[in-house]
Amino acid sequence: MKTTHTKNLIAAALVSALAFTTTIAHAADALLSWNDTAPKKAIVAFVEKVTKKSSQDFVPPNERIATFDNDGTLWCEKPMPIQLFFALDRVKELAPQHPEWKDKEPFASLLKGDVKAAMAGGEHALLEIVMATHTGMTTGEFEKMVKDWIAAAKHPTTKQPFTKMVYQPMVELLTYLRANGFKTFIVSGGGIEFMRPWTEEVYGIPPEQVVGSSGKTKYEMRDGQPVLVKLAEINFIDDKEGKPVGINQHIGRKPILSAGNVFSGGDIAMLRYCQSHPGATLQLMVNHDDAAREFAYAEPDNASLKAAAANGWMVVNMKNDWKKVFAFEK
Amino acid sequence: MKTTHTKNLIAAALVSALAFTTTIAHAADALLSWNDTAPKKAIVAFVEKVTKKSSQDFVPPNERIATFDNDGTLWCEKPMPIQLFFALDRVKELAPQHPEWKDKEPFASLLKGDVKAAMAGGEHALLEIVMATHTGMTTGEFEKMVKDWIAAAKHPTTKQPFTKMVYQPMVELLTYLRANGFKTFIVSGGGIEFMRPWTEEVYGIPPEQVVGSSGKTKYEMRDGQPVLVKLAEINFIDDKEGKPVGINQHIGRKPILSAGNVFSGGDIAMLRYCQSHPGATLQLMVNHDDAAREFAYAEPDNASLKAAAANGWMVVNMKNDWKKVFAFEK
Repeated sequence: MKTTHTKNLIAAALVSALAFTTTIAHAADALLSWNDTAPKKAIVAFVEKVTKKSSQDFVPPNERIATFDNDGTLWCEKPMPIQLFFALDRVKELAPQHPEWKDKEPFASLLKGDVKAAMAGGEHALLEIVMATHTGMTTGEFEKMVKDWIAAAKHPTTKQPFTKMVYQPMVELLTYLRANGFKTFIVSGGGIEFMRPWTEEVYGIPPEQVVGSSGKTKYEMRDGQPVLVKLAEINFIDDKEGKPVGINQHIGRKPILSAGNVFSGGDIAMLRYCQSHPGATLQLMVNHDDAAREFAYAEPDNASLKAAAANGWMVVNMKNDWKKVFAFEK
Repeated sequence: MKTTHTKNLIAAALVSALAFTTTIAHAADALLSWNDTAPKKAIVAFVEKVTKKSSQDFVPPNERIATFDNDGTLWCEKPMPIQLFFALDRVKELAPQHPEWKDKEPFASLLKGDVKAAMAGGEHALLEIVMATHTGMTTGEFEKMVKDWIAAAKHPTTKQPFTKMVYQPMVELLTYLRANGFKTFIVSGGGIEFMRPWTEEVYGIPPEQVVGSSGKTKYEMRDGQPVLVKLAEINFIDDKEGKPVGINQHIGRKPILSAGNVFSGGDIAMLRYCQSHPGATLQLMVNHDDAAREFAYAEPDNASLKAAAANGWMVVNMKNDWKKVFAFEK
């Protein structure tokens, strides 16, 4: 018994040692889908200086916090944010129970397939759609809805499952950071309960490392079992100046690396907050300039790129800096 | 160069292997301050069955979530919750700037040293004290206040620093769980920003794994730097039926092990929520029956012990189940 136990321990130790060696050896080759341009160089240089014990910028592993926006930073947000596709499918599904929607905006336009007209109502319209489609059920029921939907739904132009619409270079970056002792978080304006059911499988980010917008929930006993019911009441909007608030609430520590994208200026406050960390930091701003492989779009006021230039944040131009955008590309 | 690199890798691998072997070998001996009674047996049996790959109750590491109440479960909450000592010291410190407090409850009684009279105002009084002492500054300034205070303050009867008033068996349990791949969280009615500055050092629980009550914060630029200002507005009360809500908000996954204590019934909903996880689970309810080594106290309505009996939760009686309560005991 003793001998077998010792043998098992030695075998386990060897497996562990092998895994360790492999991690070290491959770390530098992890960013396969990045061109050898400034962003990749900046990322590797940053990771090396914060992880090398002898470096004056060394950061202990527990403080290696990296936060990533989701829509437009980790996965595609065009022709519209993916959570909206989910909401629209839910509206169609629920329409038979809501005959009044035929004459009520934003639902009437949505049901006619006119998303643009539906969204003319701005934030208020969006909120009405979210409340109608994301509340009233338990958190467990909602999780199942998201899982079922995302397993079946397809992106309208690429016809790929939405979970394949993730940026391969960013997935590699997440993996590379984790291999170097970082804890990777999503900090998104999207719904926290919409992301959590699939982020672990797709990005390797577990539910407890997902920060997002949320509605309030209420604890109830149903058939002798405790459940949380999703209420039609906003809890938190994790966007723009809400992102540092969300980071403080969930993580309680400033990130040393933070990545966002050009679209709405939604990540400026997060990148600024990251940069205010007293030690070495790195900010990445993904710029969508690749109409051929993804979509090309800019902000009307150019606020994100202006902030990047003013603060020395690294702009990642998809066209030049990424060898590949999606894993499914030939 | 190549050879040195290879040598370094082998050396690192051996260190890693050694660390791994040590972890395995010591795991079962980790609960040194527990007597060999039912709770320790239940804990070890539970951990073995959820971590053994061949077990039908096996749980993958990413789902091994354990949640712990703090006051009365991980550290002492008598003669009153420790955060109140902090608040009282803050009231005294701030009193010169608030001459009106001399005639205003609950401050007037507090300043006379009559905590009982101050607390006669119940939750409303408590809220007034917290708002007056925990808001108006930045999160960074508050963190420093807590750190400075907890480094100096002493428990009134033991004269020990409050960070030594943690239960040694529970610290061992946290370590034992982590050595077995669990992620350990605090889920406390106490203030999230009051706990985070010291939980990592004292319990090995990093800020992002602390869930607690909180006030709202606001993002602002001050002297060109982004800060979060603590507002006099409640964000979330993480107590009783709020605990499952807080767990869902922060963790997004049901715990498989959860520990609370007898005092206010504050942990009943959390333990019930844990037990509703479809797989194997374990609930611990710490009972304060040891007047000699700690404090002996019960709930007026006995709700926590009744819930434990009705639901099959393991009651941990400090007197019989713990060899040692505090590390400083002779």
